Amino acid sequence: MKAYLFKNGSIYEIEKERPAISESEALIKIKLSGICNTDIELLKGYYNFTGIPGHEFVGIVEDSYDTKLLGKRVVGEINISCGKCDLCLSGSSKHCSNRKVLGILGWDGVFSEYIKLPVNNLHIVEDSISDEEAVFTEPLAAALEPSQQFLISQDSKVAVLGDGKLGLLSAIGLKCFSSDLTLVGKHENKLNIAKKQDIAAILPDSLEKQLKSGGIERFDVVIEATGSETGLNFALNMVKPKGIIVLKTTISKSISVDISRITVNEIKIIGSRCGNFKQALYFLKNRLIDIKDMISGVYSFDNFMEAMQNAQRKGSLKYIIKY
Amino acid sequence: MKAYLFKNGSIYEIEKERPAISESEALIKIKLSGICNTDIELLKGYYNFTGIPGHEFVGIVEDSYDTKLLGKRVVGEINISCGKCDLCLSGSSKHCSNRKVLGILGWDGVFSEYIKLPVNNLHIVEDSISDEEAVFTEPLAAALEPSQQFLISQDSKVAVLGDGKLGLLSAIGLKCFSSDLTLVGKHENKLNIAKKQDIAAILPDSLEKQLKSGGIERFDVVIEATGSETGLNFALNMVKPKGIIVLKTTISKSISVDISRITVNEIKIIGSRCGNFKQALYFLKNRLIDIKDMISGVYSFDNFMEAMQNAQRKGSLKYIIKY
Repeated sequence: MKAYLFKNGSIYEIEKERPAISESEALIKIKLSGICNTDIELLKGYYNFTGIPGHEFVGIVEDSYDTKLLGKRVVGEINISCGKCDLCLSGSSKHCSNRKVLGILGWDGVFSEYIKLPVNNLHIVEDSISDEEAVFTEPLAAALEPSQQFLISQDSKVAVLGDGKLGLLSAIGLKCFSSDLTLVGKHENKLNIAKKQDIAAILPDSLEKQLKSGGIERFDVVIEATGSETGLNFALNMVKPKGIIVLKTTISKSISVDISRITVNEIKIIGSRCGNFKQALYFLKNRLIDIKDMISGVYSFDNFMEAMQNAQRKGSLKYIIKY
Repeated sequence: MKAYLFKNGSIYEIEKERPAISESEALIKIKLSGICNTDIELLKGYYNFTGIPGHEFVGIVEDSYDTKLLGKRVVGEINISCGKCDLCLSGSSKHCSNRKVLGILGWDGVFSEYIKLPVNNLHIVEDSISDEEAVFTEPLAAALEPSQQFLISQDSKVAVLGDGKLGLLSAIGLKCFSSDLTLVGKHENKLNIAKKQDIAAILPDSLEKQLKSGGIERFDVVIEATGSETGLNFALNMVKPKGIIVLKTTISKSISVDISRITVNEIKIIGSRCGNFKQALYFLKNRLIDIKDMISGVYSFDNFMEAMQNAQRKGSLKYIIKY
């Protein structure tokens, strides 16, 4: 089978054997995959990654000891946990200290014609959800995760900072929870996608001015999804005393933070990574979210390298790979 | 009256008028005050401070329109809020955006023979609490504050990082909440104070080794009270995935933080500043805390400068000023 290997900042097309499965695993033929910022970070050297990346997919179960799954269309959770350590046994299996992570850590990813995954990681996709929607399950789950970490009430004044793929998806997803949600981003075209869906949207410079003049009050909750070095400090300007900053950014270097502001203003910062697939599939099935404007391009698997190049361009949204 | 003025890194003894009080204020003659690390930071330039610092005290109400207070022994909350802004009206008056802060921001502090404070800030001290104990009310309230911000259960595995004044006080105070509390600090003499009070205590190097070898499990809660640039990153090594780091440190510069660890491990960081005076007074009255080993020295107000010098020495605990 064909796969793409990331190594030392380059991408190599390789041929390798289809993965062999154990009794608890399934072999999945990938139908569509999505390119995530993490894939771009892995290419740049995050985690000193060498391997086959990719973790957003929808595919068909082609082989499994669990015959009910054969031929089923599935999406899959990305953390492969041991099921035995204290974290697994206390319900935090996505933090399993022995975990492997699909396309990120010790487990070949979906930029490959076939993958294997534990059967327990799979969720069957209902027919009413299209392939293009299903491939958003993983990032949508991550985008909705703040709603599972603390109460976002209808009256919470929420801002999503960053209009990249995750930021935009967070804004569109979390507007179900708060009736006072604003997307803050630098790209007019993306702010317009939000506005089309009745979400308030504003440029950072304009927000900063209005915060200073008192034209806009500070926020109860800021979802920091910039993926940049400056995001957290900007979020600290936006949040009320005792407010919450959800940290979604993963970058490969340390950043400078004025921690006294966190202490003095008693801010809560909550790290937020993967989310709940059931919630994301519920949102997709019940049309609580419209992802069609989130796709920048669809490429064949043969043209994966071109898709990766485009995905790295500023302002790009989701690139989808068709197998 | 005599007072000490901090300006450009130096301390000046000055003479000035006793403060005049309004109907809502009281004039207080200071009996004892305590030197806090914040005072040392203010001397070094934190907040570009110029003024009379000091915010830990016990004193006698010498004048007030509220005649019930006359002659009463009191301690006082340090945030002087406007009572009118959104934060005040939503119960977060200690974060009032128009606030003044005793000895820190726009309000003369207790390194002065007399101060004034709003009557609403005062708490009468019961006779069973000594002056030396009462002067710990403010720092003890701050030390206990994590217990008011989230549930610290008996089974929570808690570490206090830093054996300075605040760290030691936090360890001694919070042992009432968790039966599995460890103080982590660099000073054998201070670790011994904790051990005398049945608190596990360990050097950071030794802890680091045991965390690596698996001899000690990571903590549910880490109270970061080092006051240093390295504390938060060390706390990130100590805390479990999904665990809580309480940030107590205020320092005048930004620090470098590997924020991806917060995101990936879904850590919560909770800033924590002032605390609840009623809780601290309850602890003192009911002997839930023993502060006598926390005092490094008692100086007369005339020798304040010498006390400040000693308070800046590494390894020093609380210096008390007697008026």
